[in-house]
Amino acid sequence: MTKFYNMEKKYTIGIDIGGTKMLAVLFDGQTVLADYSLSTPKDNLNKFLTMIKALVEPLLNKAKEDKIKVSGIGLGLAGFFNYETGKIIKSPNLPFLDGQDILEKIKKVISLPVAFDNDANCFTRAEAVLGAGRKFKNVFGVTIGTGIGGGWCVNGEIYNGSHTSAGEIGWMIVDYDHSIRLEEAYQRLMQNNPIQVAEEAYRGDVLAEKAYQEFGKYLGASLVSMINLIDPEIIVLGGGVVKSTDLFLSDIKKEIKKYALVGGATNVKVVKGKLGDLAGAIGAAMLV
Amino acid sequence: MTKFYNMEKKYTIGIDIGGTKMLAVLFDGQTVLADYSLSTPKDNLNKFLTMIKALVEPLLNKAKEDKIKVSGIGLGLAGFFNYETGKIIKSPNLPFLDGQDILEKIKKVISLPVAFDNDANCFTRAEAVLGAGRKFKNVFGVTIGTGIGGGWCVNGEIYNGSHTSAGEIGWMIVDYDHSIRLEEAYQRLMQNNPIQVAEEAYRGDVLAEKAYQEFGKYLGASLVSMINLIDPEIIVLGGGVVKSTDLFLSDIKKEIKKYALVGGATNVKVVKGKLGDLAGAIGAAMLV
Repeated sequence: MTKFYNMEKKYTIGIDIGGTKMLAVLFDGQTVLADYSLSTPKDNLNKFLTMIKALVEPLLNKAKEDKIKVSGIGLGLAGFFNYETGKIIKSPNLPFLDGQDILEKIKKVISLPVAFDNDANCFTRAEAVLGAGRKFKNVFGVTIGTGIGGGWCVNGEIYNGSHTSAGEIGWMIVDYDHSIRLEEAYQRLMQNNPIQVAEEAYRGDVLAEKAYQEFGKYLGASLVSMINLIDPEIIVLGGGVVKSTDLFLSDIKKEIKKYALVGGATNVKVVKGKLGDLAGAIGAAMLV
Repeated sequence: MTKFYNMEKKYTIGIDIGGTKMLAVLFDGQTVLADYSLSTPKDNLNKFLTMIKALVEPLLNKAKEDKIKVSGIGLGLAGFFNYETGKIIKSPNLPFLDGQDILEKIKKVISLPVAFDNDANCFTRAEAVLGAGRKFKNVFGVTIGTGIGGGWCVNGEIYNGSHTSAGEIGWMIVDYDHSIRLEEAYQRLMQNNPIQVAEEAYRGDVLAEKAYQEFGKYLGASLVSMINLIDPEIIVLGGGVVKSTDLFLSDIKKEIKKYALVGGATNVKVVKGKLGDLAGAIGAAMLV
């Protein structure tokens, strides 16, 4: 297994670009030395580039003070990319990035090597190598936040598939009659505000509780289908909604137990991530 | 890629054990030199072992005549196995095999090394290395017969997963409200007689046509979900129903086109296998 932190010690910056917040870390391959966050600009590309510069500046200053040489910047964000050309194909949260040669543009602003990856892949890489999956070789990560993302890490490396679109559990179809995807069902059930629905559920609102139970059933059945195809050792859950896992974890486990393949799904572990909110930025820092 | 037929030439026997027929081939790593089939015994283990001996005898005689040394026997059958102990965990078609140490027992009868694998894996291995997938590195195989099986071949090797239960597309859930698996939906739609329903559809029976169309929609949506997780280059279809592919192939392709991920699913090929009825036995012969 490629264990990044066993390699020569190097310092990198990782940025997790979310729909509302951008979070950056200065990372030494094992530990976060500093982190900084700013709200995500929604306006245009120039504003975005200015904000990226403002986001990494305190971390570069900290590195300078500590006489540390930063060797590159990794970017994690939702969307689909052409990894060969470095262009963003589609960015659902920041449409002004669509079609942009973002690596080249950030390199010009910051003068450091830049790499990017899907945010769910970044989460999964960090949790698989350093977090909840570090004792396992075959780790599937699921991020539950604004949308639902997924990533699959085998022997320390993300499996990207033949067209770099593997691991997208949010795109599994959960209603075959109406062809509704897991992510769509989730957003409909949560009325695009999962945190508020969670708060209502914790206050005892029956409809909110039911929404999370139904989501748990959908997610559980999607995981069963995923398990019967991919057969991982462990599933690690993350994203903004992971704090409310108790609202649906038992429903997930019930589905898996009920529809498990002999010897396969029955043994899979389902756990919360261990790296908290920084997981995505750490996984991005591991890109360079 | 491990290309079996590029290795030192060796002769093996492969047996595809179906629910109604057992088919054996004498194989030289690239070509089938002889094949022989018998109906599958349903009675008990002893009868089964006697029949296996009767099945390979003509092939061993042929090898003797040609002064060929057979180096082993590969067995492909539906079910779940413990590959480490060589025991069959569950054989849906031949329940008297459940829990049996089948490799040891066949070895005693035939005095040759024996290996086994899931029949859908055997089909996929043969088609991926020698058949419709031979120009591709990332091949997903689907067998449609009595039930629905699946296998995934990456760089010439079957991916088995962490608990040897990967690739089981028939176990994907297609009705989330009633937790019905693809294989169950298929068997219900075909009333456990897909060949007859196909004949009725070809004669213009509207209900039979509709059954295949609905199956195509279910299979297509399952393939979309699989593609968004695994992202293969090509999907190869096989099994007894593959001759009737025209009854549902357009429905499959429609689903894939409609719910494809950007750049991923849109590019995947869906084709029929090229090795015909012998694919499973050839893939079994490649085991040893």
